[in-house]
Amino acid sequence: MTGTLFTNISQLVTPLPGVQRGAAMRELTVIPDAALLVSGGVIRWVGPRSEAPATGAEHDLGGVAVVPGLVDPHTHAVWAGDRLADFEARVQGVPYEEILARGGGIRSSMRATGAATVEELVRLARPRLQALRASGATTIEVKSGYGLDFAAEIRMLEAVHQLQAEFGLIPTLLIHVPPTEGRSEYVEAVCHDLIPAVAKKGVASAVDVFCEREAFTIQETRAILMAAKAHGLDIKLHADQFHAIGGTELACELGALSVDHLEASGPAQIAALAGSTTVATILPGVTLHLGLPAAPGRALIDAGAAVAVGTDLNPGSSPLFSTQFALALAVRLCRLTPAESLTACTVNAAAALGLNDVGALAPGHDANFLALHSADWRELPYVLGGNPVRDVWVSGRRV
Amino acid sequence: MTGTLFTNISQLVTPLPGVQRGAAMRELTVIPDAALLVSGGVIRWVGPRSEAPATGAEHDLGGVAVVPGLVDPHTHAVWAGDRLADFEARVQGVPYEEILARGGGIRSSMRATGAATVEELVRLARPRLQALRASGATTIEVKSGYGLDFAAEIRMLEAVHQLQAEFGLIPTLLIHVPPTEGRSEYVEAVCHDLIPAVAKKGVASAVDVFCEREAFTIQETRAILMAAKAHGLDIKLHADQFHAIGGTELACELGALSVDHLEASGPAQIAALAGSTTVATILPGVTLHLGLPAAPGRALIDAGAAVAVGTDLNPGSSPLFSTQFALALAVRLCRLTPAESLTACTVNAAAALGLNDVGALAPGHDANFLALHSADWRELPYVLGGNPVRDVWVSGRRV
Ligand SMILES: [Zn+2]
Ligand SMILES: [Zn+2]
Repeated sequence: MTGTLFTNISQLVTPLPGVQRGAAMRELTVIPDAALLVSGGVIRWVGPRSEAPATGAEHDLGGVAVVPGLVDPHTHAVWAGDRLADFEARVQGVPYEEILARGGGIRSSMRATGAATVEELVRLARPRLQALRASGATTIEVKSGYGLDFAAEIRMLEAVHQLQAEFGLIPTLLIHVPPTEGRSEYVEAVCHDLIPAVAKKGVASAVDVFCEREAFTIQETRAILMAAKAHGLDIKLHADQFHAIGGTELACELGALSVDHLEASGPAQIAALAGSTTVATILPGVTLHLGLPAAPGRALIDAGAAVAVGTDLNPGSSPLFSTQFALALAVRLCRLTPAESLTACTVNAAAALGLNDVGALAPGHDANFLALHSADWRELPYVLGGNPVRDVWVSGRRV
Repeated sequence: MTGTLFTNISQLVTPLPGVQRGAAMRELTVIPDAALLVSGGVIRWVGPRSEAPATGAEHDLGGVAVVPGLVDPHTHAVWAGDRLADFEARVQGVPYEEILARGGGIRSSMRATGAATVEELVRLARPRLQALRASGATTIEVKSGYGLDFAAEIRMLEAVHQLQAEFGLIPTLLIHVPPTEGRSEYVEAVCHDLIPAVAKKGVASAVDVFCEREAFTIQETRAILMAAKAHGLDIKLHADQFHAIGGTELACELGALSVDHLEASGPAQIAALAGSTTVATILPGVTLHLGLPAAPGRALIDAGAAVAVGTDLNPGSSPLFSTQFALALAVRLCRLTPAESLTACTVNAAAALGLNDVGALAPGHDANFLALHSADWRELPYVLGGNPVRDVWVSGRRV
């Protein structure tokens, strides 16, 4: 066989390919003294070194553990401006209403992002994506949603498009903040103008809606998601962040790829997710940054749901610049086991993006993998505040 | 004046020199468009660029914020072996007693550390110290305490000694784990053999004791601390981690530099600290890693105490490899403001180590400072999982 054989891998650790639900999230394959054959950027063979096929080139990985490249299924990595004054005010006890009245809050991110050019958005996003990449993310979803108007939403998606090949980005159109007046006209225009334009340009894979008491209603959300499906786009949802108003049930009914947040989900929402094909994406960075309750990660898995984990990287509620750290936080804050957390950040996160060729170390998958500093893969969920990832490989090349 | 003038500093941010108590912890000096004059490794002048003295050399820092180098006042950075199996078992719900019965827990760290040579301990500790340094720590306390016997304790301190100049280490002899039998003989030997030997060798600045129901009693602790004082060593204490058995009150009475942990401290202990010269050192990494209650950082400051923050880097209860992240966690988990957290990680942490020439950007202080990536210093407490520190300067040299 031709290709490069990666050897001197203390342990090769991977979930099975495809989405894993419930207890199957804990079923990792661990191969000691392993090898990995790559050609054309794709994994061709994985197994014990002693059984490896003969090949021309060999690359010695130095006796460390190898895991799949991580998939970050939920970020808002494109923004302009900063929320540092908001942060300082909030931790000093200033209520969010007053922060808004001072000109802060999400609308300040929208003003700054809306005023930025595509080039500025690209320049600002790049170091954030580099940080996620260095922490192990080889596929990263990025949402729009800070556009003041449709043109600004398209500029955000164009910025994602410019960075797409460099960082393995998956773009999502997020319908995030309702206008203060003219809501029904706005939703109408989203369905009849924005979604068709985005679908035609091919600048988003999916449409996401922030379904919440203070954001879009169930009826509005349903209309937007139906329009997305009609234009051949995948759908996903921000739901149950503060109140379980029915978004999760709606998303499961419509076959959404994922429902994200779920901090306010109760038994009914957990049961809906467990009985659906929709991935439950939890975001522990928000829990740490805002000091709010964690999503019921443990209960979701115990009920049989497929759980994914993301950073939710954004300037207001989750300034979390490490996908590895999201994985580590899911263990501490959402009671996932180390194995479940790896599955959540790889194949399940891929499924939350509609991808089935990344996230596992298996023949046919993209050769995206991480060589750790340690010979024991459990350093990945264990380390806090450091980086257990020694180097990151994408399509068989070190990046 | 001779020396190097550091310029193009968007804002130079520092607490006042010396320990800061209560509300004074929030009183930062912020100088926009600042300059910093260094000669002989020491800060000679700080102020607005427009008022800077004439000098030969100039170094342009690129328009970013500058803060003092961080001081990490509490680490156990020297250990051998790992606790990854313990970690996995614990998060799966295995009780600590069973982990101990399996051969895990702190005694496994003691066996591995006790069996290691000084050279091995140095080799294992260096990358951990490099991670802390990269996160902004220019002064780092390191404790012994995993020695199975006195010779192993001395080897740990010798390992610290070998790394001392490279990383700005402050060594502490920690009396950590009582023997399973012969306690009174052990305490006797600590007082009459170990402490005098350590004092004579000059391999520790202070003596620390783990004062807790499962560790050393108040009577044992008092004897050990009195012996330390008799040999001219500073004293500090691990106290109130699980139970407030009187350690904090004892430490304040004896004039300890610091009392560390304090998760179980109540009003009496907070009042004792507020009425003393002893620094209250809190360790939020333990809170995150073990999911236990946080120390009352907010209440301590409101009562008038001087609070410091450390990583408590150790393999069992705080695998936290970033001093910046300890600072950021103190804001989220212990309700410090960003300004208080900077003071806690600089001058107050220095005071917890008996140092008064590091921690502030002021004439006469060591020229230890951090250039951030951002023009706004608040990125330092804000960023989670990334590194807001662009470069680290020690004694006026970039390291
Ligand atoms: Zn989001
Ligand atoms: Zn400690």
